[in-house]
Amino acid sequence: MSKDKVQIFDTTLRDGEQVPGCKLDTEQKLVIAERLELLGVDVIEAGFPISSPGDFKSVSEIAKLIKKDITICGLTRAVKKDIEVAADALKHAKYPRIHTGIGTSPSHIKYKFNSNKDAIIEKAVAAVKYAKTFVEDVEFFAEDAGRTDNDFLAQICEELIKVGVTVLNIPDTTGYCLPEEYGAKIKYLKENVKGIEKATLSCHCHNDLGLATANSIAGAMNGARQIECTINGIGERAGNTSLEEVVMVMRQHPSLGLDTGINSRLLNSTSKMVSEKMGMNVQPNKAIVGANAFAHSSGIHQDGVIKNRETYEIIDPADVGVDESSIILTARSGRAALAYRAKIVGYELTKVQLDTVYKEFLKYADTRKEVVDKDIHEIVAATDVAIEKV
Amino acid sequence: MSKDKVQIFDTTLRDGEQVPGCKLDTEQKLVIAERLELLGVDVIEAGFPISSPGDFKSVSEIAKLIKKDITICGLTRAVKKDIEVAADALKHAKYPRIHTGIGTSPSHIKYKFNSNKDAIIEKAVAAVKYAKTFVEDVEFFAEDAGRTDNDFLAQICEELIKVGVTVLNIPDTTGYCLPEEYGAKIKYLKENVKGIEKATLSCHCHNDLGLATANSIAGAMNGARQIECTINGIGERAGNTSLEEVVMVMRQHPSLGLDTGINSRLLNSTSKMVSEKMGMNVQPNKAIVGANAFAHSSGIHQDGVIKNRETYEIIDPADVGVDESSIILTARSGRAALAYRAKIVGYELTKVQLDTVYKEFLKYADTRKEVVDKDIHEIVAATDVAIEKV
Repeated sequence: MSKDKVQIFDTTLRDGEQVPGCKLDTEQKLVIAERLELLGVDVIEAGFPISSPGDFKSVSEIAKLIKKDITICGLTRAVKKDIEVAADALKHAKYPRIHTGIGTSPSHIKYKFNSNKDAIIEKAVAAVKYAKTFVEDVEFFAEDAGRTDNDFLAQICEELIKVGVTVLNIPDTTGYCLPEEYGAKIKYLKENVKGIEKATLSCHCHNDLGLATANSIAGAMNGARQIECTINGIGERAGNTSLEEVVMVMRQHPSLGLDTGINSRLLNSTSKMVSEKMGMNVQPNKAIVGANAFAHSSGIHQDGVIKNRETYEIIDPADVGVDESSIILTARSGRAALAYRAKIVGYELTKVQLDTVYKEFLKYADTRKEVVDKDIHEIVAATDVAIEKV
Repeated sequence: MSKDKVQIFDTTLRDGEQVPGCKLDTEQKLVIAERLELLGVDVIEAGFPISSPGDFKSVSEIAKLIKKDITICGLTRAVKKDIEVAADALKHAKYPRIHTGIGTSPSHIKYKFNSNKDAIIEKAVAAVKYAKTFVEDVEFFAEDAGRTDNDFLAQICEELIKVGVTVLNIPDTTGYCLPEEYGAKIKYLKENVKGIEKATLSCHCHNDLGLATANSIAGAMNGARQIECTINGIGERAGNTSLEEVVMVMRQHPSLGLDTGINSRLLNSTSKMVSEKMGMNVQPNKAIVGANAFAHSSGIHQDGVIKNRETYEIIDPADVGVDESSIILTARSGRAALAYRAKIVGYELTKVQLDTVYKEFLKYADTRKEVVDKDIHEIVAATDVAIEKV
């Protein structure tokens, strides 16, 4: 089956970088941009040029640096000055994109803009029209689309298509939607917006309830062909959709008929690079890129993995750039794992010997978080059984 | 609308604790068990008694300690000795539950057990029957149910109901399922297993693809009435479903008609306690309990939150035990946030003054990850504008 390509729009350097503590200087941003190019993303959102002179410079330098077929994007509000500054920052990009937008939910229209629906549409259309005078490729974000009624959203989208918008970004800005809700929203737009085939629908989901990955996939299943995401899922508050998760969901589920151009073998090292440069820890139990993502510790699981990797692993660690799955000994480990590690450090145990050593191992492990290879020698010595090293 | 209760089965002390580096001694486990009681979980899976003498002791002490209406559960394989040891560890529990089970997917049956479907059913039935001779409440896990065909799963469930199983746990052991797939699996069992109303269906989802929360919610939407989860989503590999996420998804989406008995105001402090005791970091961008979950840094967002909290926050931070949402100044902050923080530290800036101070602020912020309150004094002083402190 031929697969539909879903574009990966990486916003690590924009939505990710705006996080407390994550600020990068231009040089660091350039190193990450080069790595994103290597990773195979389709769009790099390089920053929000009007926000500060430093951010302007970063967008501008990235636009000069990246010459492969990757779109370089700059964020703006639906404000003339923002758009002019973004266009200026992007002027050296081979494929420049201006990403403009405005809040469309009742809460945003009322409290943030003290405005009304007609005025919001007018502003949106004016912003896209103005951006189109600088670049061909203009993406529009309907901020808080997750809480915007679908009718109004469809109306805006239709008006924007008339003035040449190329990408329609439907952000679940507050991370509120359930997957079926978000999927239904994309489906509604696909089915009800005249001319929708002229623009790409894009998912931009936040992770406030832990649903960003599921929501983005639901969007793609219903017709979105761009996912906005970040390395390690960093971003405002609980973060954005994790690039590594959506990429691997599509890769591991061929029945979806969707894929990306990402070289998954670079996921692990890219995660580490971004985490180090931004000083943002990745928790050990983070999907795909956490330190424990391929570590097996319970006896039942270790036994299964030793017999056949696929018993407990759906992803081959090598496919995401991890050297191998690890069998770590703890008090929850069983005989199979102990025998496996003992063999690695040089003891070929008979069944009877293993029973003896295992008893000693449990006493030892109950007082420790982890048993490392060198402890095995101590445990074997303590058993008073003559065991020869092979 | 009256809501259906979804039981929260906490396995922090079992599936969470078996993780590399997370081992707890009995005293630490007792402290966490008491906190889980306070939090309002329905079931505490206290450990895997046969796995080690230390774990046996922990389960036994927790069973003695917890006297509220909370079920204390011990894990076993479908093995007589395991069940006997678990029953012994649970003998002082007010509400004891034995949790036994066996792998049911083709991969588990073939590679792990070198067995066949009939023999697996026989073992499962024998285990539940034997466990029922010790306790009334017996839960069965069909390991790797996520990759087990629904027909065979239904057949096992039906046989187990005949011998009195009380809870049927349908684990997505490898974290492979998509939400619609997992939801459809639960729906299939609800509709095709004779006598299913006599048992509770339970979700136990792993997070290898970042979908555990969405899968568990899909399960509950389709008839499961127990969710197995851990504080901070810790657990084997990429971890289990995060307790805090599923609880808040149900709380924030009243239309689901589902709720739990969790006191959400204790979520943040419970997360911190578990993280400290286990030495497992929670990443800043973790949903609900991450350090940044309620932090706003971009200018657009800060402006919105200052005008009205709900513009960018779907959860009131107080509802999960966080003191307040924070407005953190970075180079991505706008005038509104600067004025807001400046006012807090004592400067009531006029519009003209704010313009001047904001320019200085941007120069300053571009070279730093974060601007803290005391930096504001320095910035104001550098502007050479006479600004009086209020």
